[in-house]
Amino acid sequence: MSDKRFHVLGIGNAIVDVLARTDDAFLESREMVKGGMTLIDEITAGNLYGEMQAPMEQSGGSAANTIAAMASLGSDCAFIGKVCDDLLGERFTDAIREIGVTFETAPAQDTTSTARCLIFVTPDAQRTMLTYLGTCVELGPRDIDADMVADAQITYLEGYLWDPPEAKEAFIRAATIAHEAGNKVSLSLSDAFCVDRHRDDFLQLLEGHVDILFANEDEITSLYQVDEFDDALQYVRGHCEIAALTRSENGSVIVSGDEIHVIDAAPVTEVVDTTGAGDAYAAGFLYGMTHHLGLRDAAHVGSVAAAEVISHMGARPAEPLGSLIEHKLNLKN
Amino acid sequence: MSDKRFHVLGIGNAIVDVLARTDDAFLESREMVKGGMTLIDEITAGNLYGEMQAPMEQSGGSAANTIAAMASLGSDCAFIGKVCDDLLGERFTDAIREIGVTFETAPAQDTTSTARCLIFVTPDAQRTMLTYLGTCVELGPRDIDADMVADAQITYLEGYLWDPPEAKEAFIRAATIAHEAGNKVSLSLSDAFCVDRHRDDFLQLLEGHVDILFANEDEITSLYQVDEFDDALQYVRGHCEIAALTRSENGSVIVSGDEIHVIDAAPVTEVVDTTGAGDAYAAGFLYGMTHHLGLRDAAHVGSVAAAEVISHMGARPAEPLGSLIEHKLNLKN
Repeated sequence: MSDKRFHVLGIGNAIVDVLARTDDAFLESREMVKGGMTLIDEITAGNLYGEMQAPMEQSGGSAANTIAAMASLGSDCAFIGKVCDDLLGERFTDAIREIGVTFETAPAQDTTSTARCLIFVTPDAQRTMLTYLGTCVELGPRDIDADMVADAQITYLEGYLWDPPEAKEAFIRAATIAHEAGNKVSLSLSDAFCVDRHRDDFLQLLEGHVDILFANEDEITSLYQVDEFDDALQYVRGHCEIAALTRSENGSVIVSGDEIHVIDAAPVTEVVDTTGAGDAYAAGFLYGMTHHLGLRDAAHVGSVAAAEVISHMGARPAEPLGSLIEHKLNLKN
Repeated sequence: MSDKRFHVLGIGNAIVDVLARTDDAFLESREMVKGGMTLIDEITAGNLYGEMQAPMEQSGGSAANTIAAMASLGSDCAFIGKVCDDLLGERFTDAIREIGVTFETAPAQDTTSTARCLIFVTPDAQRTMLTYLGTCVELGPRDIDADMVADAQITYLEGYLWDPPEAKEAFIRAATIAHEAGNKVSLSLSDAFCVDRHRDDFLQLLEGHVDILFANEDEITSLYQVDEFDDALQYVRGHCEIAALTRSENGSVIVSGDEIHVIDAAPVTEVVDTTGAGDAYAAGFLYGMTHHLGLRDAAHVGSVAAAEVISHMGARPAEPLGSLIEHKLNLKN
């Protein structure tokens, strides 16, 4: 597959994150769903933004974070997502292009604004996200650049795309083009509540559209409506070619047909902010998949990338992941 | 296999445990291998016994503990192991018969004494064991009751049998009889240092003599001389019919051909003493194997049994495990 221009093309919501530390009492007083991602309107976003202490702004978006981490690993990547032609949209665009990612989606020219995700980080390093989708709701099938999809070894899509109304059509179009070109399609389940909203659609997707699935323990048990990780594991084995299931400090489990790997989490001195942990893991794993590493070593790259991202505030890598994996991994392939 | 008299026959070192709480400084001052099992002579055992604060005496022995826990689960069990005709030997014999286990091995009639294991429990609930094997060194092939082996669905043997010189011959004889009778043979690797002493023999055993293997993470990585659990997992998959690999608070992983289960540890309010955790897990798992439960549910019974045993001092169950699993498990088979 090495004649392709891109290792991975990510398609997702183009979002700017605003992060701030807070305490559990604040979450409770605002009735926030701790650890979850809740959709909010622009007015609520404006009000909550006003309550954030020392907010830090950084480009985000789940698939976009994964693509940023892949670029940091040295991969050739592209991203498709919808910003507005406003200041935040410019910042998102500049940030992703600056790290070498091809990003050519036409910005929306109207009154909605670029999406924002307000992220509250509690002392236990857990992140609680509230997202105003803004212009993301305008992403549709016409934004899918067929040549770009055909020219990417893997097209990676976030489950959050099921929230804006037209993005799912973009998703299906991209997946269809990718498969027609002999490429792979990967999906991240994004969030247990998101899975709950779109379970039937996601289950159908796994039947034919998805080759590589990413999910954490809450998401995969929510998908199959089971209590135990092992039960979800049994279901997913027969459901897609490769599933990479993350379990926070308990590491990850990779299943692909008869092959299975139980991988430890990479050590972290201090977990500061878990925002983007799953996105970074997916980046490392997809790096492995597109660089001829086996599943085991791909999972290790994922673990190391996730460990870097959770050791500081913000969802994107603070140091170049490429040099980090050279130091930390003794890849055996 | 239900026409057999015994669900499981255990063969192991017949040992009386002496447990006491201590601190890490004591272990260091005596140069003890924390978490390990070290063989000591009778004089050292006598000296160390004198240093134990408020020692608690209870029948032990790894396979014997497993058999005791299986009896507590309501299974029909037998045990073969060598005591001396001394006071400790009587206590061991009375205790195991009292819970309904068939135990008919002729006691030794000589000057060595019944084996003792001095167990030092540190505040982190870790146990450090020092064993004087005593009469255990006299267990040999002649002690293997062929009818008993033939009449047990599973013959369960502890890796510690490789320490006394003649017991390994007893082990091979028992395994051969079991297989000739169409029964299963199960081995626990016992201890990472024990694996280190007998690696080549254990690897050979797995090739033909062992159907169900129990090992914790340290033992299985020691067996295959690898750093990571996942690497050991890949080796063991091709090596025996069923492997149940325990990972302390990270639960267990069961592999059998294409089948794999990743099972959480059962919740414990307070971990008091980890002595016997692996023995109890094996008991629960073997209970499942001999009561038509699947691997998943067998592992759950193992987890619940282990959780009970680590919640108090001593390696044998303090409450009847049979009623405990009825309450705690919602077995789905």
